[in-house]
Amino acid sequence: MDKFIYSFGGKQTEGDASQMDLLGGKGANLAEMARLGIPVPPGFTITTACCNAFLKSKGRYPRGYAEELQAALSALEEAMGMCFGNPNNPLLVSCRSGGRQSMPGMMETVLNVGLTTDTIPGLIQKTGNPRFVYDSYRRLIMMYSDVVMEKAEGIEPENGNAIRVQLERIFDAFKETKGADKDTDLSDECLKEICELFKERVKKVLGRPFPDDPKEQLEGAIGAVFKSWDGKRARSYRRIENIPGSWGTGVTVQAMVFGNMGESSATGVAFTRNPATGENQFFGEWLANAQGEDVVAGLRTPSPLNEETKVEHNRKVASLQTAMPGVYDELVKIRKRLETHYRDMLDIEFTIQDQRLFMLQCRVGKRTGTAALIMAMEMLNEGLIGETEAILRVKPDQLNELLHPIVDPLEEKKAKLLAQGLPAGPGGAFGQIVFTSDDAVKLSRTHDQVILVREETNPEDIEGMRAASGILTARGGMTSHAALVARGWGKCCIVGAGEISINPATKKMKIAGKTYAEGDILTLNGTTGKVYEGKLKMVDATEDTRFKTFMEMADKYRTMGVRANADTKEDALVAKSYGAEGIGLFRTEHMFYRGGTDEPLFMLRKIILSNTASERRTAIDDLAPFVKQDIKETLKAMDGLPVTLRTLDPPLHEFVPHSRAKQVELAEAIGVDLAEIKRRCEALQESNPMMGHRGVRLGISYPDLTEMQVRAIFEATAELVEEGFHPQPEIMIPVTSDVKELVFMRRLVSRVCEEVTQQHGMAGIVHKFGTMIEIPRSALRGHKMAEVAEFFSFGTNDLTQLTYGFSRDDAGEFMPTYLERKILKRDPFQTLDPWGVGELIEIATERGRKTRRDLKVGICGEHGGDPESVRFCYKTGLNYVSCSAFRIPIARLAAAHAAIEEKIATHP
Amino acid sequence: MDKFIYSFGGKQTEGDASQMDLLGGKGANLAEMARLGIPVPPGFTITTACCNAFLKSKGRYPRGYAEELQAALSALEEAMGMCFGNPNNPLLVSCRSGGRQSMPGMMETVLNVGLTTDTIPGLIQKTGNPRFVYDSYRRLIMMYSDVVMEKAEGIEPENGNAIRVQLERIFDAFKETKGADKDTDLSDECLKEICELFKERVKKVLGRPFPDDPKEQLEGAIGAVFKSWDGKRARSYRRIENIPGSWGTGVTVQAMVFGNMGESSATGVAFTRNPATGENQFFGEWLANAQGEDVVAGLRTPSPLNEETKVEHNRKVASLQTAMPGVYDELVKIRKRLETHYRDMLDIEFTIQDQRLFMLQCRVGKRTGTAALIMAMEMLNEGLIGETEAILRVKPDQLNELLHPIVDPLEEKKAKLLAQGLPAGPGGAFGQIVFTSDDAVKLSRTHDQVILVREETNPEDIEGMRAASGILTARGGMTSHAALVARGWGKCCIVGAGEISINPATKKMKIAGKTYAEGDILTLNGTTGKVYEGKLKMVDATEDTRFKTFMEMADKYRTMGVRANADTKEDALVAKSYGAEGIGLFRTEHMFYRGGTDEPLFMLRKIILSNTASERRTAIDDLAPFVKQDIKETLKAMDGLPVTLRTLDPPLHEFVPHSRAKQVELAEAIGVDLAEIKRRCEALQESNPMMGHRGVRLGISYPDLTEMQVRAIFEATAELVEEGFHPQPEIMIPVTSDVKELVFMRRLVSRVCEEVTQQHGMAGIVHKFGTMIEIPRSALRGHKMAEVAEFFSFGTNDLTQLTYGFSRDDAGEFMPTYLERKILKRDPFQTLDPWGVGELIEIATERGRKTRRDLKVGICGEHGGDPESVRFCYKTGLNYVSCSAFRIPIARLAAAHAAIEEKIATHP
Repeated sequence: MDKFIYSFGGKQTEGDASQMDLLGGKGANLAEMARLGIPVPPGFTITTACCNAFLKSKGRYPRGYAEELQAALSALEEAMGMCFGNPNNPLLVSCRSGGRQSMPGMMETVLNVGLTTDTIPGLIQKTGNPRFVYDSYRRLIMMYSDVVMEKAEGIEPENGNAIRVQLERIFDAFKETKGADKDTDLSDECLKEICELFKERVKKVLGRPFPDDPKEQLEGAIGAVFKSWDGKRARSYRRIENIPGSWGTGVTVQAMVFGNMGESSATGVAFTRNPATGENQFFGEWLANAQGEDVVAGLRTPSPLNEETKVEHNRKVASLQTAMPGVYDELVKIRKRLETHYRDMLDIEFTIQDQRLFMLQCRVGKRTGTAALIMAMEMLNEGLIGETEAILRVKPDQLNELLHPIVDPLEEKKAKLLAQGLPAGPGGAFGQIVFTSDDAVKLSRTHDQVILVREETNPEDIEGMRAASGILTARGGMTSHAALVARGWGKCCIVGAGEISINPATKKMKIAGKTYAEGDILTLNGTTGKVYEGKLKMVDATEDTRFKTFMEMADKYRTMGVRANADTKEDALVAKSYGAEGIGLFRTEHMFYRGGTDEPLFMLRKIILSNTASERRTAIDDLAPFVKQDIKETLKAMDGLPVTLRTLDPPLHEFVPHSRAKQVELAEAIGVDLAEIKRRCEALQESNPMMGHRGVRLGISYPDLTEMQVRAIFEATAELVEEGFHPQPEIMIPVTSDVKELVFMRRLVSRVCEEVTQQHGMAGIVHKFGTMIEIPRSALRGHKMAEVAEFFSFGTNDLTQLTYGFSRDDAGEFMPTYLERKILKRDPFQTLDPWGVGELIEIATERGRKTRRDLKVGICGEHGGDPESVRFCYKTGLNYVSCSAFRIPIARLAAAHAAIEEKIATHP
Repeated sequence: MDKFIYSFGGKQTEGDASQMDLLGGKGANLAEMARLGIPVPPGFTITTACCNAFLKSKGRYPRGYAEELQAALSALEEAMGMCFGNPNNPLLVSCRSGGRQSMPGMMETVLNVGLTTDTIPGLIQKTGNPRFVYDSYRRLIMMYSDVVMEKAEGIEPENGNAIRVQLERIFDAFKETKGADKDTDLSDECLKEICELFKERVKKVLGRPFPDDPKEQLEGAIGAVFKSWDGKRARSYRRIENIPGSWGTGVTVQAMVFGNMGESSATGVAFTRNPATGENQFFGEWLANAQGEDVVAGLRTPSPLNEETKVEHNRKVASLQTAMPGVYDELVKIRKRLETHYRDMLDIEFTIQDQRLFMLQCRVGKRTGTAALIMAMEMLNEGLIGETEAILRVKPDQLNELLHPIVDPLEEKKAKLLAQGLPAGPGGAFGQIVFTSDDAVKLSRTHDQVILVREETNPEDIEGMRAASGILTARGGMTSHAALVARGWGKCCIVGAGEISINPATKKMKIAGKTYAEGDILTLNGTTGKVYEGKLKMVDATEDTRFKTFMEMADKYRTMGVRANADTKEDALVAKSYGAEGIGLFRTEHMFYRGGTDEPLFMLRKIILSNTASERRTAIDDLAPFVKQDIKETLKAMDGLPVTLRTLDPPLHEFVPHSRAKQVELAEAIGVDLAEIKRRCEALQESNPMMGHRGVRLGISYPDLTEMQVRAIFEATAELVEEGFHPQPEIMIPVTSDVKELVFMRRLVSRVCEEVTQQHGMAGIVHKFGTMIEIPRSALRGHKMAEVAEFFSFGTNDLTQLTYGFSRDDAGEFMPTYLERKILKRDPFQTLDPWGVGELIEIATERGRKTRRDLKVGICGEHGGDPESVRFCYKTGLNYVSCSAFRIPIARLAAAHAAIEEKIATHP
């Protein structure tokens, strides 16, 4: 029979840190700490398996559970020398969630379970602290009515009328009438009165009384935590974070220790190193006379843990180091013990009850990308971890944030500082401000840059936070919800900017007397916590030597190549600086989209719409030098490295003028009347342009255009060779579906190559000839395609469109529903579908290499910069991935990870 | 070493009819006839292999060829007792093309080779017929200068200035000056003079003299015939007929016999049975004092072979039967001998030289579909062939023409007869008249119905003939170019309508004094040869009992099912009458496209654009009874047979109103203002609707719509069961790409089924649940799809679009070029691509059946009615094909062929 409950911290500790899957992170790590002799309040953890059974059977517990619960509770009572529900010596417990992976704030917690009208007097007698007891009771009522009686029952109150909000309003109103500023200003009598008001309101609103039976409280709390696994917020978070619903949560029931027993009590959270910068400093926050939720919820702004980490902003408040030096020293020792044991940075929660320290939680801490990298390098130097472990410590996507834009320091010096908060998420961001999550989502559909401004964030804000470029809150600390989430995403975020006063109802906020309305623009510096008016310029993060060292180390393990998609000399140089080993996709048509002179585009339009063959010929000849120059610059910038040049890809319609003015101009230039120009432009319209007259199809219809491009490539190459360079052009034909298309193009390319070779009196021009594989048929015909192609490059954007039959431009209409209803696990345009699209890639690669053993195979769709897709490419044996310049480090690291993980898997 | 030349008819005959591939049809059959003791002029055939070697090496003959040619020529001289180039006893030869498959008029022929200034006197002395000799000489010059000196040299004269045309003009002008009506009116002196004029003109235009050396003439003629294999006309014809370019042509060099030696000489062609009707009657045409080309070219209208086949039109001319009864009897004996030997209807050419009969050619004759079927059934009855052979004798596509429309006999009675010609191609046709092939092609792009009117057709007209619905010529007989080609295609055609007088320059024609211009409408009855003014109604060919018997016989051998794509009760009944064994595709949305009441469409629009959930609900409820009624009628019509009902497929945009009036009407009906209606309609627009929000994607976004359809299906079924019928609904989900879509829909379908079952108090409702496979991914995931789907139906239209990345609506821009440049062998939307699309079908079928052994697999794209695609489906093991009603007999026969062919291949 399965065991559903594991005790810890008492006579016997049954679990350990290896049992994350079964006990959840919290339960497993509490057991581990108990085994290490670190003080934790005793308790027990109910397993995730029990959670799954409970949810599957719609609220029934598995057989044997009840007996185990009774036994675990008895053992806990024995360990504590107290008795649950006993009026004289009552044991109180907390019920906390804990999944395999941390989901901050997404699930529920109930504290102080076991307080009833029966046990209150006993606890007062025992502690001699009636204020504390009633404060605990009012907290229990608030949490329990919210979590157990409302949410877990699936009651969805009208906006703003949640029971929790109603009780908070009562509480605030009461404080108002008593002239109390802080909770702690309220007397025990006041709190007692508040508890009575709370209970009345609960009964009135929820239709049943607040339970006064400890067992009922415990059962309700456990069930509610389980149910919260399937709550809306949790599901939404899991979808974003790709956490399977099947994991379930554990529930840890633990003897209460109290940080709210007076000024000699406290609660706090800390990171063993700085989670934002990676610095090796003990970094945390604490609140005297408070329970843990006060810190995490960001309701009160906490104080720094020690002197070292104080900043301008909180210079004047007392640190734990000075307030309780003995306890602080003990905490520092535990920090050291945990880091040595776990060999990683940890995120810990502790409570001090009357000068006595208890650890409530420890887990591997979330960190920014920068911090992850710095910590990995330092722990490597400290000998805590080895090279491959250091590399694996940084998730490829985390690098994103190292490469994030930051506010231009020069502009920042001159800018008007509006407010100062805590630097909770890295980089800079500017944008139009909005005051609700919904507005952020809405506005982000049409505007790139949105700043979400909130009093504080809560899990309901997740979607808006995701949509925003930056997040700004008026309240909360570095471990508040906003800070935790933003850090996880590497998103620019400032929390606890107390100067700002927000009125969500009018969608306005005030800072220093000035009012800002929705749509006004602010700039945030998430690295310093500074808020500015208006839009400041952003610059790319400068290079960090540790970053370079780290990437070089990763490259030692990497076996798959990384190239860039780049269409200009400038892009090429950036890509090279990021470590690109070549260009995997140079879009020859890009020059026509570029700003600046539109001369080339005008010439192309003449070619497309010209009246006679000779006009067309002239226009092609006029355009040719521009094309050559464009290609030559990039080949030169990438000297010695391969550059894959794709011939014309988009349908011609994309190039013709749509404005009347431009049509008139063109009509005059080519001597055709306007109506005719209009007619020709319209004739180029297509029903499904994605599958229309484009790519190689254009090349076969209009070989003169392709020939001009190919000639430009060979001439540019020949000239560079003559100038002493080593260009390595690779000509790539797009949108092919049959080898005969390639035969046609190969002939054309070979002829032009011969001609240019002769003109330049050279022995030959080194080049490669290959094709995009972006049409399902060409993947299936890989063995034939490879008869002519020397390389394949998977265009996974189009391949995904055609394999799924999803038009990317139109998928917005159904993709959200598909993700919501779990028809799709992920958006296949973001992460490569390994089953359908992936199989076509595998088929093409295998068949292609059967024909041509040394066929070079790469990928140049946007998936080339997605870590999971990179892993797939590695497993499939691709030679390289190609991605946009700014994702190259990510691809390099992802490729290194894939290689290391394979090594570990084969030689564990 | 390869043998390049095979002699026949002399001392030794080296080839036989089995060597078609090597000797071409003409050469092989001449050898076969020689072996049968049938009189053929001796000669030899140069192989197709030699042709290929010659063309590949750009005009060089393979080693050993020269010696073989000398030896064959010597043997021929010996057999004839004459000598090639000998002034006293000169041998003349013909050089004729002959491919593996007949390509009428597409390649070149040169007659009378060997006539020079040296040999002319000897031949005159020998024949005593100077007129004949000079007539032969002028023919040689005309043909040779055209075929060898101009065309084979790749000279492309300006329009109308081909050497042949120039010489014809000289000839006509000469006749004019001499007052000669017919060629035969010219004296030998005149002809001699003409020959001199000809030679002068040839030298002037082509820059070199007409060769006077017999060997040079022979070599030139052989080379020109070989080269004509790669001529423009031949290539164009091969593309249409799917003849591989690699086959090559043979050249048959044969001793000349002369049909133009006077009135006791003649030339003729015949079919051993009537190629238009299939009747067992000897059917042919002859011309006295003429060479064979005169008949085939249609320059003179020939006379009927016998009394039996005379018609009103040629009642007065002399038949061969009466003119030369002895020769005719001999020909009848040969006809019998050949049919018994070849066990098929033959197409023969003969020449009578001075009352002596020679066979110049025999081959299996082309025939109309009707004739093919009638002959097959009669030869089966005669014991000439067996059942399977009879079935294989009719090509599936030939049935098309049996099902062709014919002119409504009632209308025809009252219509004004304009002209009478020979009934050369079956069925009726009407359309706007055009006078050039180019105009036919152009007009057919925008107009369905075009009639091509020509003085006579020639191979340059092929494209226009193909584009036209009907063909009408003023000259030529049943074996003229137009008649041969039209019959091959089963296209409506009337030839030799002598009353009409055409002026291509003004694009007008006169009939009985009335002028008709381009664009005027005529109707042709190709079965009777009658031409009418204006448009007459067409009706479907009535059922023929022999057709029914034939189809029943084919069905005995067929193993694969045939269903119809039908969307109405009416379609269903037609399909059933054509032998449909079920409906493979019922498009539920079809009711919204139908004319008549637009009530259902209006309701659907309300659903799509309604303002509130309750309005939507009401509109859905309002629409439901219409949907149910529609489905019920079809289920009832197909009682006892399976009906596959596809849920909503097209994107919603197809249904919303685009006209202002309709938008206003709708705006009023649903109480939304016009601007909002417009906005919503526009919002439904998609960039690539083919890959957009459609099919199952709609069903997942709007399950209420699907539910209504599914409920309609179950309610219709339940009601029919209660009424004593046996409906067999199969619910099909379109546009799926993942099994989870099917899981979603399966749940919905099962729930609705349960509900309807309970409402009707039934034990259950028998139905099947399955999916279209039209997205590459769903094919690849066949094993998963089959976990839920009980059947697959390949939607090969969309599958082809996505596998190739070809938008069918836009492919018109590049498909012609792709076919022209041979990038594609065929249009993959017409004939299933066996490599790419086909492999996906194979993969899906194999994987699907691995999961579900009894998975039913069919195809419902348009390919279901294409014989070659049907063969592919059979080989892949599909359970059925589904096609439009009027192609069902074709699919049935194709499936029978596939089964028989497999049987023959496995048990030869």
